[in-house]
Amino acid sequence: MTTECESSEKGPDFNKNNGLLPVIAQDSKTHQILMLAYMNEEAFRETCETGTAVYYSRSRQQIWRKGEESGHVQKVEKICVDCDRDTILLSVQQQGVACHEGYRSCFFREVTTEGLRVIAERIVNPADVYK
Amino acid sequence: MTTECESSEKGPDFNKNNGLLPVIAQDSKTHQILMLAYMNEEAFRETCETGTAVYYSRSRQQIWRKGEESGHVQKVEKICVDCDRDTILLSVQQQGVACHEGYRSCFFREVTTEGLRVIAERIVNPADVYK
Repeated sequence: MTTECESSEKGPDFNKNNGLLPVIAQDSKTHQILMLAYMNEEAFRETCETGTAVYYSRSRQQIWRKGEESGHVQKVEKICVDCDRDTILLSVQQQGVACHEGYRSCFFREVTTEGLRVIAERIVNPADVYK
Repeated sequence: MTTECESSEKGPDFNKNNGLLPVIAQDSKTHQILMLAYMNEEAFRETCETGTAVYYSRSRQQIWRKGEESGHVQKVEKICVDCDRDTILLSVQQQGVACHEGYRSCFFREVTTEGLRVIAERIVNPADVYK
């Protein structure tokens, strides 16, 4: 998918949230939620232009081309916005795993009365990916 | 689901994001993403105690008991956190619709080259719900 997007009534409203909008990445086939990250307008534009998910890393304060190092890119099939146009939903084809801890999804732990419980299998050894 | 949760290693980390964490609500059956909202620690605790989704309204700056007025409550079946413990994922049974505009999901518009395109049916007339 390659789409020309603009930050106007046609798309997300980057005047909100100090220009940094939360983005949900959902597996287009299984509908599993893979991760939540953030985009500024530049990241959104590059995502639209390339068809591959590009985020803004709040910790590194720079554009984050997801999978650039690991190869675990996300091919974007569909982009939606919510009613307030301040949250973005990406339907993606995930290469490899979404989580830097080696799980398919970042949401691999359930909150229970006994504390956090891991409910997914680690697929990838992070040490093998980030060298 | 009624769970005693604490904001510690056992759950979300409310020391992050100024104590306000994004929360994804996902339909437990269809896996459709319904909405994104925010919780502070109090909202999270009440959600755990009651088994019904309680958020924090950033615009009204107060606790927001989802569905209190409309009846469109969310019964919480499962709570997960992401790898950084700064995003929460709720699996919910949605009564009625999640979106105040009358759509099942807040993500009822797709970003296309021609602008925003409505991709869902309006199920409820908002005027009938919020009087």
